Amino acid sequence: MPTRGFPTAEYEARTARAQERMAERGLEGMLLSTEADVRYFTGFHTAFWQSPTRPWFVLLPAAGKPVAVIPEIGVPLMRTTWVDDIRSWPAPDPDDDGVSLLIELLSPLSRLGLPMGHETHLRMPLADWTRMRAALPGLEIEDATEITQGLRAIKSEAEIAKIAHICAIGARAFSQVPEFALTGAPLDGVFRAFRRAALTEGADEVPYLVGAAAQGGYADVISPPDAQPLATGDILMLDSGCSWDGYFCDFDRNWAIGPPTDAARRAYDTLWTATQAGIDAARPGATCRDLYDAMARSLGTSGGNVGRLGHGLGMQLTEQPSLAAFDETPLAAGMVLTIEPSLPYGDGLMMVHEENIVVQDGPAALLTPRAEPELPVIG
Amino acid sequence: MPTRGFPTAEYEARTARAQERMAERGLEGMLLSTEADVRYFTGFHTAFWQSPTRPWFVLLPAAGKPVAVIPEIGVPLMRTTWVDDIRSWPAPDPDDDGVSLLIELLSPLSRLGLPMGHETHLRMPLADWTRMRAALPGLEIEDATEITQGLRAIKSEAEIAKIAHICAIGARAFSQVPEFALTGAPLDGVFRAFRRAALTEGADEVPYLVGAAAQGGYADVISPPDAQPLATGDILMLDSGCSWDGYFCDFDRNWAIGPPTDAARRAYDTLWTATQAGIDAARPGATCRDLYDAMARSLGTSGGNVGRLGHGLGMQLTEQPSLAAFDETPLAAGMVLTIEPSLPYGDGLMMVHEENIVVQDGPAALLTPRAEPELPVIG
Repeated sequence: MPTRGFPTAEYEARTARAQERMAERGLEGMLLSTEADVRYFTGFHTAFWQSPTRPWFVLLPAAGKPVAVIPEIGVPLMRTTWVDDIRSWPAPDPDDDGVSLLIELLSPLSRLGLPMGHETHLRMPLADWTRMRAALPGLEIEDATEITQGLRAIKSEAEIAKIAHICAIGARAFSQVPEFALTGAPLDGVFRAFRRAALTEGADEVPYLVGAAAQGGYADVISPPDAQPLATGDILMLDSGCSWDGYFCDFDRNWAIGPPTDAARRAYDTLWTATQAGIDAARPGATCRDLYDAMARSLGTSGGNVGRLGHGLGMQLTEQPSLAAFDETPLAAGMVLTIEPSLPYGDGLMMVHEENIVVQDGPAALLTPRAEPELPVIG
Repeated sequence: MPTRGFPTAEYEARTARAQERMAERGLEGMLLSTEADVRYFTGFHTAFWQSPTRPWFVLLPAAGKPVAVIPEIGVPLMRTTWVDDIRSWPAPDPDDDGVSLLIELLSPLSRLGLPMGHETHLRMPLADWTRMRAALPGLEIEDATEITQGLRAIKSEAEIAKIAHICAIGARAFSQVPEFALTGAPLDGVFRAFRRAALTEGADEVPYLVGAAAQGGYADVISPPDAQPLATGDILMLDSGCSWDGYFCDFDRNWAIGPPTDAARRAYDTLWTATQAGIDAARPGATCRDLYDAMARSLGTSGGNVGRLGHGLGMQLTEQPSLAAFDETPLAAGMVLTIEPSLPYGDGLMMVHEENIVVQDGPAALLTPRAEPELPVIG
């Protein structure tokens, strides 16, 4: 089992790399407000972010350690990290939820980076942001999305070890599905049983679980489960993001409940082969678009209008980059990716297939045990 | 067990009430971008929001049903709701992630409401928001926080039934803690066992679980658990937000592992009494501040610098209002609240205590079975 947390050297290296890129861009600081960005640079790790009540901020200065501007309730935990400069207020305070502290901290700066592009959001009230901007008229704000996303996309050995660990846990949970996904079992009960299995196998949490089961195949992969019992002829899919020490796996498995239709068997074969094409194409120097193209070619015209065929994975269930025609990001050693082709078939049905890999010199390494090459049958 | 989902009449009523308040404010529409706000008015319920990749929008027009502007992947699920007007794009598209669709939809309006105050955020890239604003120079944006938060704070009978159901599930899970929180059990294992118990008892998910265990008492209530084994003399606290059909409980329990110190016993007594004072004060017409004052008086000078002593509860773990000195919101029948006093004691220790209630005519109704009046001892 990997060690929880990271040595301080990991945070020093992340911060130094960010500051190098900030210097190239002439940024005197970078303001962070989301859970993953704050945790990446500080190690501050808590479920408390689930409450929308309190904003949390970190300023990455041009040199030196991150500066935390956080609610008082978080100070003891932040003190256990490598951060020294911790400024706090008794949140919640609707009149001044950290805004004065931010203004004071940022007022010496003239050029600030902020992640404000694709796949970002600012986790503070827009009215507070507007007030802060008005109080700092000389402060130029630059989009720093590529810095945070670019750094986080390349995982360290320690990060990869955590992701590999949770992928192995997820795989052991998936291997138990044939024991409880039996004819007559309600789908919401199958979801509960999967969550319990993943916890038993060592997951800290099972934040994400979607799936479907329907006769001949499923048509929707984002609905919550209902109590409909599994029936012979169903295709069952479960797609789970389990987490361990704040790092995710994200992969799925398909099963036939009783003998499947030929169409479902063929869809599974097509997806398995397309997944392999994606894995084989994942070499440093190839681009995300190359991986997309390799999978799309393998799927052939049957691929339909697919937006992307995989994505980055790590501290969040989905991260940059996207395996999509629009993403020309070159692959690099240390990128953890989901390989996730999908296929429409039959009368409005679809099938999805997903594995997790890490890009390295030479062929990519699978973090998930490869799904069975033929659609597995339960019962 | 309550029924999953809501009849269309519930969404019609929510929308009509919002539109009434919008009319009073002269708002021609209200733009929503967060999971809970979108679900509240549409019934769109999916774990897919956990991926930060895609933005999702709903416009509440001055009259008629909500209009959805969402990624294509969500269309089949949105079609199962009462929403008719669904506009979609093949997200993710970094060049235009719904922005053109929003501009087209909003261009006829001159006055738009947006939740942008305390406890809100805008779930879309700030750069996209800025681009949209620039394309709609005639559009005035007004803070509509009080409309969404005000409506959501008063729960319907159907919502209260769901919260009562998950509170009962959480209580059954808490009642099993003495079976697995034994001397020598590592705290992270206790967390896993609690999550499994809650799932077994019928929770859909256990998104939130914090807690602590330490000799004589704990000092921090937001850290993740470590593998330190429980020892005689520890005070253990678990605080959990389990969910069922998208509604939360949020309460905690304390236990002594072996005989507790007198200081811990006294802290527990003080908190139990302060909790009772809060429950007793919760009558329609009293304000949130009155509840805060009742608990603060009961805690006496021992209360320390406490920011708030409870909050709203429902589709999110924490919602408006706040039981705090700054919150003059009058209590009204249908408000579901956590009563959550905390107490510093000893040498940097603290204790927390939390129950869930619903405000109604006459005395408030407990949704959680009242904690034992004396600190329960395990072993």
